[in-house]
Amino acid sequence: MGRYSRQELFAGIGPEGQRKLSGKHVLLVGAGALGTGNAEILVRAGVGKVTIVDRDYVEWSNLQRQQLYDEVAAHTRIPKAIAARQRLQQINSEVQIEALVLDLTLEELDTVVTDVDLIIDATDNFDTRLLINDYALKQRIPWIYGACVGSYGTTMTIVPGRTPCLHCLLETIPLAGATCDTVGVISSAVQMVVAYQTAEAFKLLVGDMAALHGKLISFDLWSNQHTSISIDNMKRENCLSCGSRPVYPYLQSERQSKTAVLCGRDTVQIRPSKAGQRDLAEVARAWSRLDGRVESNPYLVSLTLSSHRLVLFQNGRVLVHGTKDIAEARSLYYKYLG
Amino acid sequence: MGRYSRQELFAGIGPEGQRKLSGKHVLLVGAGALGTGNAEILVRAGVGKVTIVDRDYVEWSNLQRQQLYDEVAAHTRIPKAIAARQRLQQINSEVQIEALVLDLTLEELDTVVTDVDLIIDATDNFDTRLLINDYALKQRIPWIYGACVGSYGTTMTIVPGRTPCLHCLLETIPLAGATCDTVGVISSAVQMVVAYQTAEAFKLLVGDMAALHGKLISFDLWSNQHTSISIDNMKRENCLSCGSRPVYPYLQSERQSKTAVLCGRDTVQIRPSKAGQRDLAEVARAWSRLDGRVESNPYLVSLTLSSHRLVLFQNGRVLVHGTKDIAEARSLYYKYLG
Repeated sequence: MGRYSRQELFAGIGPEGQRKLSGKHVLLVGAGALGTGNAEILVRAGVGKVTIVDRDYVEWSNLQRQQLYDEVAAHTRIPKAIAARQRLQQINSEVQIEALVLDLTLEELDTVVTDVDLIIDATDNFDTRLLINDYALKQRIPWIYGACVGSYGTTMTIVPGRTPCLHCLLETIPLAGATCDTVGVISSAVQMVVAYQTAEAFKLLVGDMAALHGKLISFDLWSNQHTSISIDNMKRENCLSCGSRPVYPYLQSERQSKTAVLCGRDTVQIRPSKAGQRDLAEVARAWSRLDGRVESNPYLVSLTLSSHRLVLFQNGRVLVHGTKDIAEARSLYYKYLG
Repeated sequence: MGRYSRQELFAGIGPEGQRKLSGKHVLLVGAGALGTGNAEILVRAGVGKVTIVDRDYVEWSNLQRQQLYDEVAAHTRIPKAIAARQRLQQINSEVQIEALVLDLTLEELDTVVTDVDLIIDATDNFDTRLLINDYALKQRIPWIYGACVGSYGTTMTIVPGRTPCLHCLLETIPLAGATCDTVGVISSAVQMVVAYQTAEAFKLLVGDMAALHGKLISFDLWSNQHTSISIDNMKRENCLSCGSRPVYPYLQSERQSKTAVLCGRDTVQIRPSKAGQRDLAEVARAWSRLDGRVESNPYLVSLTLSSHRLVLFQNGRVLVHGTKDIAEARSLYYKYLG
């Protein structure tokens, strides 16, 4: 029996669908828990080409849920994209795998996204998601939003011209202070998001648009919640990203998350691209479970770690003390504020 | 940050739950798609000991969805339990992993199941599930049923003394002719069952019984169905496996799937332990998609493969022609009839 025989037997794919998969190119943004889970399934399934973008290296605390990595990768602190490619090539040498070690920003998008049929979101932050959203809409590439934290997860499929976009739903998706680095995460939640994302990916790649779920799905595996909200009527005609006169605001550099090194202060300031008030009390609660000192007043909350200090203001602005390195500051920002 | 820090941060587990996990022993029956998915999550999570039982070796057609295996394993046809252990030890050397290459039957149960806190079903057949069910009830060990085929999956958690058992629900669970070898399977469906099974496993292992879902869950990721039926009122007081006077029928050897070599005929006869009429037309339809010749009449349906021939009778009895090897015959039976 052939390598892909179980997919060729499956009515939703079949031999014709399998041929289509082998000619497709998927871009995976992020090689953490969601990214490695998606990558392993797509590569095993025989998708023609997979490009993986990630800025981090493998750490011991990743091994609990990031499935392509082993103890050697954590010990040698190898970049995630590279470690992922190594393992994926052992799994399926027929698939072309490109690994890019970089923090995906506006500047890189045009060079990274070439002949891409589908983008899968496996990031940990809304800055990158909003960038993906505008870019995918402009280029008319479908993309699949996914996120998880604790035992909770959520996902939605965005098809340009057919569905609402992430920007349309931005007010309905909560921006909590919770990230995997503040409230933890279990692999089960990761795998459920991966299950939804990859099923939708297969449908898109074989062209079975009628099978897409058309929902904003969310669940909590510990409290046994499972909800799906129809997104049919959620497209906003005046949406700046997908409405009748799109301007793709997150592709305009001034709407990007603004990062600046503060002169002479060993401090980086970050202003997020998703504007809005932060619930400081909620962030303080999440941070209080960490191995650091939390202080707050009605205007700000701060987290002092061994060698850095984060200060969050109500309008979302953050100061990262203890570094002049913008990449390091952004990494800490996404870790502790999502 | 420690290796398990993201689970210690997660409120459902916490540092105390993590300590509990490290002292637990989980038995995984089967190292196919569900088995490797469950094993990888539990081993990454730091469960103290995992025992994996499987009778097969790695084949090329497994690589599409069986996540611990790579091309080397398929090329060398290494037994699945052994290949799984190799990869799992690279992932987490702190976990004790036992690999047993055998077809789990009544005889082996007492030697295999020692000090087991939880059994996870990752088998491909009801004979073994009914055996697990009776054994787990008798020993008062919780177990988690799971199955998937195509884009469909189903799962239920059985806690002795608290929930109904598989035997109680046997009439409500369909026995179709569909297996992964007849109608295929996609990894997304596998991962969703794995997500449910491992979340329930974590709850059981840390002792959070109130968080168990208490449902018979089933879904189809391609047709976007998701149903959960409460099992609260499905316990049958006269159930022979979990009722007020249990006799554990599937632990009595005459209720085991009966396998016999037919004298001088190069044929093995199999009579299944889950009795009942088979829908011959449905089996014939499923088989017709395979690379073999299918013939049927109102009394039987047969599938002729390159070197074997299976004949299924309406009462579920099967003849496997072309072998005197009982293990090989059982393997073909489960492959093509589930």
